[in-house]
Amino acid sequence: MAEPKQERAVKTREAILYAAAEIFDEYGYSGASVSKIMNRAGVTQGGMYFHFKSKRSLAQAVMASQQDFVNFPMGEAGLQRVIDLTFHLARELQENVLVRASIRLAVEQGEFGMQDDTVYREWADRLYTYLRAARERGELLPEVDEREFANVLVGAYSGTQLYSQVSTGRADLPERVASLWHYLLPGITPPHVRAKLRTGHRRSGVAA
Amino acid sequence: MAEPKQERAVKTREAILYAAAEIFDEYGYSGASVSKIMNRAGVTQGGMYFHFKSKRSLAQAVMASQQDFVNFPMGEAGLQRVIDLTFHLARELQENVLVRASIRLAVEQGEFGMQDDTVYREWADRLYTYLRAARERGELLPEVDEREFANVLVGAYSGTQLYSQVSTGRADLPERVASLWHYLLPGITPPHVRAKLRTGHRRSGVAA
Repeated sequence: MAEPKQERAVKTREAILYAAAEIFDEYGYSGASVSKIMNRAGVTQGGMYFHFKSKRSLAQAVMASQQDFVNFPMGEAGLQRVIDLTFHLARELQENVLVRASIRLAVEQGEFGMQDDTVYREWADRLYTYLRAARERGELLPEVDEREFANVLVGAYSGTQLYSQVSTGRADLPERVASLWHYLLPGITPPHVRAKLRTGHRRSGVAA
Repeated sequence: MAEPKQERAVKTREAILYAAAEIFDEYGYSGASVSKIMNRAGVTQGGMYFHFKSKRSLAQAVMASQQDFVNFPMGEAGLQRVIDLTFHLARELQENVLVRASIRLAVEQGEFGMQDDTVYREWADRLYTYLRAARERGELLPEVDEREFANVLVGAYSGTQLYSQVSTGRADLPERVASLWHYLLPGITPPHVRAKLRTGHRRSGVAA
């Protein structure tokens, strides 16, 4: 039995997105081309242009798929989930080319004339939801504004992974994320909650 | 009386650097070219190649000049100086094309195949010096590792300015920096010190 047309189109689009992410990760935006992506995905020119008209629209779609590329097995709820997500993302950045490419495009988009904060806002929205749950569980200090802190965390995390990328190719990213939490947690959660949170190992001599 | 040769060479190099920063800010790395920079600086091909052999070496030099481009009138010492520097840099990013270009190149360097953390480390070194002074003035909590926090701050700040850039063209950067400090300060300084620090206005409804 033949696949329904729509289902086939969805699969083709997915194959193109994955191929595009791989090519952008390998060559950067300027080095990538629609034909390289077509070849990698094994689609025809017709198939490509049905879904994407340009390299730019491919880059936009790859950036927008960031959250789909990240497969986060949500464990505990509340503040621990926020922390776990940052460490999970650190590992994904080390190991998953699709995540890496989509974040690289988001960071370097200025170089190809884009200015689109959708990806950043989507992460902030997700963190906001988790932080609301943390608030309901009584884990946040009264002076924490969940929306504001979600934005602070997205910004701080973006730069942390960037600095780690240029320093060590992201080898030390988990330690850097642990350090970030070491200095952020006292500002958002009371000591008795903090004592129970797992935040990984920092690189400095001081114990976490 | 003719200028000594060496002095003239220093001035030419400076003129080239400024022109390069302006061109990179205007066109991005891929859109910039050595000839555009030569024309802007008003130097001959010989003058250019005496100092810089390629667009890449120009970009590296612009990145490396970041701290020279930032004219920071150091006021108070200690932790307030660390905070003041972050707000000063926020204004410089809004108004000074040279600073903007050098930071843009540092952030987007992956796109043109570079991976150089010199700029990040130089800022971390400078902040470390200020933080040591803050430590000597008794402004830091015992659990603060000055070297580690300098690195955390450089990473967090880099991402904060990046997120602000794609969101609002950096119009809201000062408020975002104020928010960052709101959540970082409790982790590094005791309440009686914090009460005396000036950290600007946050965007959220909560008072700073």
